[in-house]
Amino acid sequence: MLFDERFLFTPGPTPVPERVKVAMNQPMIGHRGEEFPRLLEEVSRRLMPVFGSKSPVMLISGSGTAALETAVVNVVEEGDHVAVIVTGAFGERFAAICEAFGANVHRLEIEWGKTCSAEELTLFLKKTDKVFKAVFATYCETSTGVFNPIKELGEAVKQHTDALFIVDGVSCIGAVRPDMAEQNIDILVAGSQKALMLPPGLAFIATNDRAKAAIQKCRTKRFYLDLNRYHASFEKEAQTPFTPAVSLIYGALEVCNMLEEEGLDQVAERHLLLKEMVRKSVPALQLPLLTSDENASSTVTAIVTDTGPAKQLKKILAEQFGIVVAGGQKKLKGEIFRIGHMGYCTPYDVLKVLTGMEMALQQIGEGKKLGVATAKAQEVWLRQLAK
Amino acid sequence: MLFDERFLFTPGPTPVPERVKVAMNQPMIGHRGEEFPRLLEEVSRRLMPVFGSKSPVMLISGSGTAALETAVVNVVEEGDHVAVIVTGAFGERFAAICEAFGANVHRLEIEWGKTCSAEELTLFLKKTDKVFKAVFATYCETSTGVFNPIKELGEAVKQHTDALFIVDGVSCIGAVRPDMAEQNIDILVAGSQKALMLPPGLAFIATNDRAKAAIQKCRTKRFYLDLNRYHASFEKEAQTPFTPAVSLIYGALEVCNMLEEEGLDQVAERHLLLKEMVRKSVPALQLPLLTSDENASSTVTAIVTDTGPAKQLKKILAEQFGIVVAGGQKKLKGEIFRIGHMGYCTPYDVLKVLTGMEMALQQIGEGKKLGVATAKAQEVWLRQLAK
Repeated sequence: MLFDERFLFTPGPTPVPERVKVAMNQPMIGHRGEEFPRLLEEVSRRLMPVFGSKSPVMLISGSGTAALETAVVNVVEEGDHVAVIVTGAFGERFAAICEAFGANVHRLEIEWGKTCSAEELTLFLKKTDKVFKAVFATYCETSTGVFNPIKELGEAVKQHTDALFIVDGVSCIGAVRPDMAEQNIDILVAGSQKALMLPPGLAFIATNDRAKAAIQKCRTKRFYLDLNRYHASFEKEAQTPFTPAVSLIYGALEVCNMLEEEGLDQVAERHLLLKEMVRKSVPALQLPLLTSDENASSTVTAIVTDTGPAKQLKKILAEQFGIVVAGGQKKLKGEIFRIGHMGYCTPYDVLKVLTGMEMALQQIGEGKKLGVATAKAQEVWLRQLAK
Repeated sequence: MLFDERFLFTPGPTPVPERVKVAMNQPMIGHRGEEFPRLLEEVSRRLMPVFGSKSPVMLISGSGTAALETAVVNVVEEGDHVAVIVTGAFGERFAAICEAFGANVHRLEIEWGKTCSAEELTLFLKKTDKVFKAVFATYCETSTGVFNPIKELGEAVKQHTDALFIVDGVSCIGAVRPDMAEQNIDILVAGSQKALMLPPGLAFIATNDRAKAAIQKCRTKRFYLDLNRYHASFEKEAQTPFTPAVSLIYGALEVCNMLEEEGLDQVAERHLLLKEMVRKSVPALQLPLLTSDENASSTVTAIVTDTGPAKQLKKILAEQFGIVVAGGQKKLKGEIFRIGHMGYCTPYDVLKVLTGMEMALQQIGEGKKLGVATAKAQEVWLRQLAK
């Protein structure tokens, strides 16, 4: 290549805005001094609308999996029955964590690339017929690029069980408009390195009062991820019980500024635009989409490459055109590649990955007319402007 | 707009790479301490191949116009005859500075958008028939987007006069491969905010021995821009006579790293690619180019918008599509707009501005088929890859 840039289009980590990088480079402060509690309090409260939470959002130094594990170990005890909706690799991870802590895991397995409907969940809950401690769902299943219908699933959980409804929002919080009360979500967790535009290393956990009560009663052995400690430290002195990732929290404050300046509704609308630009354009390259329009995530799109030369696309995109996309995971390995379009991403970024794909297809002898995909995406953008 | 980014495509200032920003944020050092001379010496020497200079490049805290003035006041005395090739606004600036210092200025006026040939210069020098102290030329005339044929002009100067050949390289140094000896350039100046990828505020002056001798003899009153002081301080103790712009010089060192890593020839080749991408694609939008292919600059392209709705393009590009281009200057005001494609610029940046132009034209009812321009540019890129 004639230039030395790489453009990151993986569904996490995602590009970090320069403003956020600058914010993270503020002078390190002792987290037991006077300044840090003010910072933590502000970030925890300003994240409440981002999570649709009525309580401040807890921050734990750790990755997205730490967030998932926090949601498990603070609620689930050995021997508890839990239902886990598995629509892909990250549903599977929730199930694996529950199993690691001795729960009786009941998997509701959905074909990868599809979502779980409220009817399927209702049927499953009735058929399994256990007293469930919790039902686990994945908001955005990153491995396939679907959004599960969280509100409908939450409704089904509420109607048919007393279980807590626990949702993995790792790859969509910051790009969607959750409302924990309206969606019947008791615990909603996220990581920093997706639509929240930060580097990896910060886990976010939002809980409602019902979840807090369950967490207080839970006897599962835990220490670092014990939410009771986090809630107590926050309420007592706006602190974390263990050393906080100070620079990431500085960055999180700047993320709050950016989200508020653009407007949370506008941010969600932008992600819908990015999604539609990708979905309306990629079929023009004769590359099938893994998911249906109604199931599709607004943050990540999976493209099927199970036939012949398209398999080389990911490699050519990276080596010749500097564009880094993600492959398939587990049972979709080698079958798809995934484009992340979340967080710090504009319509031009979608156009960039499309121009790269058009040229990469030419390079492997599968070329369509240059510009066909970008034109479709531009039309979507223009229609949005006309609204 | 659904996002809050502006993308800078003016022919200076240009985007500053993050690496360079980080470098500029190193701790401030006292410039009379031990560290600064090492920094200055390294930057001045590593810029030598960038300028094609056999002597270290002098750094002055000031803008591009300070660089032009330095080239004038260190050589030209009141009453001296000087020839100034005027191919646009920046040739005119050289002439204006010479006049301000009392020189007899002989302007070789060229139609804006065209270059000056060696034949035209030879004829002019013979016809004017004066003992010229200096001949001034603009390497890249930013206001029209042409590269004057510096080597041929330098040859003509050498053959027909004893004058110094002084060249304004402000908007191309860092994107081309000058060779002062081969091009018969005696003084070559540049600014920081163009292809050298820095913020504005640093002026660069390269001189050969012949120029140094003339500078020593020159009696024009000067202080801050007195190159003798800069040469003496540098030679004696690797210092500047007046306070240096320390952070910009830190940045300049990182620019040297970047240019060397990519390779100076590769950098020049990339700019030729960017130029060809723009020039092969814009006509597909029925927008005429101001200059011919052989005259065209590899760093900035002027597009004619003298007819009707195309005049709105610049405004729509900025307001609806976040793309900031430059208008015309002086006699070309309102007649053209200019796209800078220099310095920190990849082929994707050209594709970005093209997708924006395609959509902006649709918005003003002058739309061509979406993708026609980008496809042309992609074809150029693919042909370059096939080489």
